[in-house]
Amino acid sequence: MQDSKSDSDGCDFSNAVNIEFKFENGLIPAIVQDAESKEVLMFAYMNEEAFRLTLETKIAHYWSRSRQSLWKKGETSGHYQHVINIFFDCDADCLLLFVRQDGGACHEGYRSCFYRSIDGEIVGEKVFDEKEVY
Amino acid sequence: MQDSKSDSDGCDFSNAVNIEFKFENGLIPAIVQDAESKEVLMFAYMNEEAFRLTLETKIAHYWSRSRQSLWKKGETSGHYQHVINIFFDCDADCLLLFVRQDGGACHEGYRSCFYRSIDGEIVGEKVFDEKEVY
Repeated sequence: MQDSKSDSDGCDFSNAVNIEFKFENGLIPAIVQDAESKEVLMFAYMNEEAFRLTLETKIAHYWSRSRQSLWKKGETSGHYQHVINIFFDCDADCLLLFVRQDGGACHEGYRSCFYRSIDGEIVGEKVFDEKEVY
Repeated sequence: MQDSKSDSDGCDFSNAVNIEFKFENGLIPAIVQDAESKEVLMFAYMNEEAFRLTLETKIAHYWSRSRQSLWKKGETSGHYQHVINIFFDCDADCLLLFVRQDGGACHEGYRSCFYRSIDGEIVGEKVFDEKEVY
Protein backbone atom coordinates (compact mmCIF):
# COMPACT_ATOMS: atom_id res chain seq x y z
CA MET A 1 0.00 0.00 0.00
CA GLN A 2 2.92 2.32 0.47
CA ASP A 3 3.16 3.27 -3.18
CA SER A 4 -0.43 4.29 -3.52
CA LYS A 5 -0.19 6.07 -0.20
CA SER A 6 2.83 8.08 -1.25
CA ASP A 7 0.91 9.16 -4.35
CA SER A 8 -2.10 10.37 -2.50
CA ASP A 9 -0.18 11.85 0.40
CA GLY A 10 1.16 14.71 -1.69
CA CYS A 11 -0.41 18.11 -1.61
CA ASP A 12 -4.06 18.40 -2.36
CA PHE A 13 -3.64 20.24 -5.62
CA SER A 14 -7.28 21.22 -5.61
CA ASN A 15 -6.19 23.81 -3.05
CA ALA A 16 -3.59 25.26 -5.40
CA VAL A 17 -3.12 28.93 -4.74
CA ASN A 18 -4.60 31.42 -7.09
CA ILE A 19 -1.22 32.67 -8.26
CA GLU A 20 -0.84 34.10 -11.70
CA PHE A 21 2.09 32.05 -12.89
CA LYS A 22 4.18 33.71 -15.55
CA PHE A 23 4.09 31.75 -18.78
CA GLU A 24 6.61 33.22 -21.18
CA ASN A 25 5.58 32.63 -24.77
CA GLY A 26 3.09 30.20 -23.30
CA LEU A 27 5.65 28.18 -21.34
CA ILE A 28 6.95 27.97 -17.78
CA PRO A 29 10.19 26.12 -16.91
CA ALA A 30 9.95 23.18 -14.50
CA ILE A 31 12.77 21.65 -12.49
CA VAL A 32 12.13 18.04 -11.52
CA GLN A 33 13.63 16.66 -8.34
CA ASP A 34 13.43 13.18 -6.80
CA ALA A 35 11.22 13.71 -3.73
CA GLU A 36 13.36 11.43 -1.57
CA SER A 37 16.98 11.65 -2.73
CA LYS A 38 16.62 15.29 -3.88
CA GLU A 39 18.54 14.42 -7.04
CA VAL A 40 17.63 16.80 -9.87
CA LEU A 41 16.26 14.50 -12.57
CA MET A 42 15.45 16.76 -15.48
CA PHE A 43 14.40 20.16 -16.73
CA ALA A 44 11.46 20.77 -19.03
CA TYR A 45 8.71 23.23 -19.89
CA MET A 46 4.98 23.20 -19.30
CA ASN A 47 2.27 25.04 -21.13
CA GLU A 48 -0.99 25.80 -19.32
CA GLU A 49 -2.59 22.55 -20.44
CA ALA A 50 0.37 20.45 -19.25
CA PHE A 51 0.30 22.27 -15.93
CA ARG A 52 -3.44 21.69 -15.52
CA LEU A 53 -3.12 18.00 -16.42
CA THR A 54 -0.24 17.62 -13.97
CA LEU A 55 -2.35 19.08 -11.17
CA GLU A 56 -5.37 16.98 -12.12
CA THR A 57 -3.64 13.62 -12.61
CA LYS A 58 -0.55 14.00 -10.40
CA ILE A 59 1.41 12.54 -13.31
CA ALA A 60 3.90 15.03 -14.77
CA HIS A 61 2.98 16.45 -18.18
CA TYR A 62 5.14 18.81 -20.20
CA TRP A 63 5.24 20.64 -23.49
CA SER A 64 7.78 19.17 -25.87
CA ARG A 65 9.39 22.07 -27.67
CA SER A 66 11.13 19.77 -30.17
CA ARG A 67 7.93 17.90 -31.08
CA GLN A 68 5.66 20.90 -30.45
CA SER A 69 3.17 18.72 -28.61
CA LEU A 70 1.85 17.85 -25.20
CA TRP A 71 4.04 15.24 -23.57
CA LYS A 72 2.88 12.90 -20.83
CA LYS A 73 6.27 11.88 -19.44
CA GLY A 74 6.52 8.08 -19.47
CA GLU A 75 3.88 7.48 -22.12
CA THR A 76 6.40 5.66 -24.35
CA SER A 77 8.83 4.34 -21.75
CA GLY A 78 6.48 3.61 -18.86
CA HIS A 79 8.76 5.79 -16.74
CA TYR A 80 6.12 8.02 -15.23
CA GLN A 81 6.71 10.79 -12.74
CA HIS A 82 4.30 10.71 -9.81
CA VAL A 83 4.05 14.25 -8.51
CA ILE A 84 4.30 14.50 -4.73
CA ASN A 85 4.47 18.27 -4.42
CA ILE A 86 5.03 21.42 -6.44
CA PHE A 87 6.81 24.60 -5.41
CA PHE A 88 7.24 27.89 -7.24
CA ASP A 89 9.82 30.63 -7.05
CA CYS A 90 9.66 34.21 -5.84
CA ASP A 91 8.88 35.56 -9.31
CA ALA A 92 6.27 32.84 -10.00
CA ASP A 93 8.03 32.12 -13.29
CA CYS A 94 9.57 28.73 -12.50
CA LEU A 95 8.18 25.51 -11.00
CA LEU A 96 9.91 22.87 -8.90
CA LEU A 97 8.34 19.41 -8.88
CA PHE A 98 9.03 16.76 -6.27
CA VAL A 99 8.35 13.40 -7.93
CA ARG A 100 8.59 9.69 -7.45
CA GLN A 101 10.28 8.61 -10.66
CA ASP A 102 9.50 5.21 -12.20
CA GLY A 103 12.68 3.87 -13.86
CA GLY A 104 14.80 6.69 -15.22
CA ALA A 105 14.07 10.25 -16.26
CA CYS A 106 16.63 10.43 -19.05
CA HIS A 107 15.94 9.08 -22.54
CA GLU A 108 19.58 7.93 -22.60
CA GLY A 109 18.90 5.41 -19.84
CA TYR A 110 20.13 7.35 -16.84
CA ARG A 111 18.25 8.05 -13.67
CA SER A 112 18.90 11.77 -14.17
CA CYS A 113 19.49 13.78 -17.34
CA PHE A 114 22.34 15.51 -15.50
CA TYR A 115 24.60 12.47 -15.62
CA ARG A 116 27.79 14.25 -16.74
CA SER A 117 29.95 16.71 -14.86
CA ILE A 118 31.66 19.55 -16.62
CA ASP A 119 35.01 17.74 -16.57
CA GLY A 120 33.46 14.97 -18.69
CA GLU A 121 33.01 12.41 -15.94
CA ILE A 122 29.90 10.20 -16.07
CA VAL A 123 28.47 10.64 -12.58
CA GLY A 124 24.93 9.39 -13.18
CA GLU A 125 23.45 5.97 -12.64
CA LYS A 126 22.40 4.00 -15.73
CA VAL A 127 19.10 2.35 -14.84
CA PHE A 128 17.74 1.00 -18.13
CA ASP A 129 18.77 0.17 -21.69
CA GLU A 130 17.36 3.00 -23.75
CA LYS A 131 17.53 0.87 -26.93
CA GLU A 132 15.02 -1.55 -25.45
CA VAL A 133 12.68 1.15 -24.22
CA TYR A 134 12.42 3.72 -27.04
CA MET B 1 40.46 25.82 6.72
CA GLN B 2 37.43 23.81 5.77
CA ASP B 3 35.70 26.57 3.90
CA SER B 4 38.63 27.40 1.68
CA LYS B 5 39.19 23.69 1.17
CA SER B 6 35.63 23.09 0.06
CA ASP B 7 36.06 25.87 -2.49
CA SER B 8 39.18 24.48 -4.03
CA ASP B 9 38.10 20.88 -3.80
CA GLY B 10 35.50 21.31 -6.52
CA CYS B 11 36.16 20.22 -10.07
CA ASP B 12 39.14 21.64 -11.84
CA PHE B 13 37.16 23.67 -14.32
CA SER B 14 40.23 24.14 -16.49
CA ASN B 15 39.54 20.56 -17.58
CA ALA B 16 35.98 21.42 -18.68
CA VAL B 17 34.93 19.22 -21.55
CA ASN B 18 34.84 20.64 -25.00
CA ILE B 19 31.07 20.34 -25.26
CA GLU B 20 29.16 22.71 -27.47
CA PHE B 21 26.57 23.89 -24.98
CA LYS B 22 23.34 25.06 -26.53
CA PHE B 23 22.77 28.73 -25.84
CA GLU B 24 19.28 29.66 -27.00
CA ASN B 25 19.08 33.31 -27.96
CA GLY B 26 22.45 33.58 -26.26
CA LEU B 27 21.30 32.07 -22.95
CA ILE B 28 21.43 28.71 -21.20
CA PRO B 29 19.26 27.93 -18.14
CA ALA B 30 21.02 27.07 -14.89
CA ILE B 31 19.54 25.25 -11.90
CA VAL B 32 21.32 26.02 -8.65
CA GLN B 33 21.42 23.41 -5.91
CA ASP B 34 22.98 23.52 -2.45
CA ALA B 35 25.94 21.14 -2.73
CA GLU B 36 25.33 19.66 0.71
CA SER B 37 21.60 19.71 1.43
CA LYS B 38 20.64 19.34 -2.25
CA GLU B 39 17.99 22.01 -1.80
CA VAL B 40 17.22 23.75 -5.10
CA LEU B 41 18.05 27.39 -4.41
CA MET B 42 17.22 29.24 -7.59
CA PHE B 43 16.92 29.19 -11.33
CA ALA B 44 18.63 31.67 -13.64
CA TYR B 45 20.21 32.09 -17.04
CA MET B 46 23.83 32.45 -18.16
CA ASN B 47 25.17 33.96 -21.32
CA GLU B 48 28.57 32.83 -22.59
CA GLU B 49 30.41 35.52 -20.64
CA ALA B 50 28.65 34.63 -17.37
CA PHE B 51 29.46 30.98 -17.95
CA ARG B 52 33.11 31.75 -18.65
CA LEU B 53 33.39 33.98 -15.56
CA THR B 54 31.74 31.28 -13.43
CA LEU B 55 34.30 28.72 -14.60
CA GLU B 56 37.19 31.12 -14.10
CA THR B 57 36.26 32.52 -10.70
CA LYS B 58 34.17 29.68 -9.24
CA ILE B 59 31.69 32.38 -8.17
CA ALA B 60 28.33 32.07 -9.94
CA HIS B 61 27.63 34.70 -12.58
CA TYR B 62 24.38 35.01 -14.52
CA TRP B 63 22.69 37.14 -17.14
CA SER B 64 19.91 39.23 -15.68
CA ARG B 65 17.13 39.27 -18.23
CA SER B 66 15.22 41.98 -16.36
CA ARG B 67 18.24 44.28 -16.12
CA GLN B 68 19.80 43.06 -19.38
CA SER B 69 23.22 42.94 -17.77
CA LEU B 70 25.84 40.60 -16.41
CA TRP B 71 25.05 39.71 -12.82
CA LYS B 72 27.62 38.52 -10.32
CA LYS B 73 25.29 36.93 -7.78
CA GLY B 74 25.97 38.42 -4.35
CA GLU B 75 27.56 41.63 -5.59
CA THR B 76 24.94 43.74 -3.79
CA SER B 77 23.96 41.41 -0.96
CA GLY B 78 27.28 39.71 -0.23
CA HIS B 79 25.45 36.41 -0.69
CA TYR B 80 27.85 34.80 -3.12
CA GLN B 81 27.51 31.32 -4.57
CA HIS B 82 30.76 29.36 -4.45
CA VAL B 83 30.60 26.82 -7.25
CA ILE B 84 31.67 23.33 -6.20
CA ASN B 85 30.73 21.47 -9.35
CA ILE B 86 28.74 21.84 -12.56
CA PHE B 87 26.73 19.21 -14.40
CA PHE B 88 24.93 19.37 -17.73
CA ASP B 89 22.01 17.47 -19.17
CA CYS B 90 21.72 14.98 -22.02
CA ASP B 91 20.88 17.69 -24.56
CA ALA B 92 23.63 20.02 -23.30
CA ASP B 93 21.05 22.79 -23.07
CA CYS B 94 20.75 23.12 -19.28
CA LEU B 95 23.30 23.44 -16.47
CA LEU B 96 23.11 22.26 -12.87
CA LEU B 97 25.36 24.03 -10.37
CA PHE B 98 26.30 22.64 -6.98
CA VAL B 99 27.12 25.64 -4.80
CA ARG B 100 27.99 26.68 -1.29
CA GLN B 101 25.54 29.55 -0.75
CA ASP B 102 26.52 32.47 1.49
CA GLY B 103 23.39 33.73 3.29
CA GLY B 104 20.31 33.26 1.13
CA ALA B 105 19.75 32.89 -2.60
CA CYS B 106 16.40 34.68 -2.70
CA HIS B 107 16.10 38.46 -2.86
CA GLU B 108 13.07 38.11 -0.57
CA GLY B 109 15.28 36.89 2.28
CA TYR B 110 14.77 33.17 1.95
CA ARG B 111 17.44 30.52 1.66
CA SER B 112 15.78 29.30 -1.56
CA CYS B 113 13.63 31.12 -4.11
CA PHE B 114 11.28 28.09 -4.05
CA TYR B 115 9.92 28.92 -0.62
CA ARG B 116 6.22 28.43 -1.41
CA SER B 117 4.35 25.26 -2.23
CA ILE B 118 1.48 25.25 -4.68
CA ASP B 119 -1.07 25.14 -1.86
CA GLY B 120 0.25 28.49 -0.65
CA GLU B 121 2.22 27.26 2.33
CA ILE B 122 5.52 28.98 3.13
CA VAL B 123 7.95 26.08 3.33
CA GLY B 124 11.24 27.96 3.00
CA GLU B 125 13.59 29.24 5.66
CA LYS B 126 13.90 33.02 6.03
CA VAL B 127 17.60 33.69 6.61
CA PHE B 128 17.99 37.46 6.29
CA ASP B 129 15.98 40.68 6.30
CA GLU B 130 15.82 41.70 2.66
CA LYS B 131 15.06 45.33 3.61
CA GLU B 132 18.45 45.60 5.31
CA VAL B 133 20.36 43.98 2.48
CA TYR B 134 18.99 45.49 -0.74
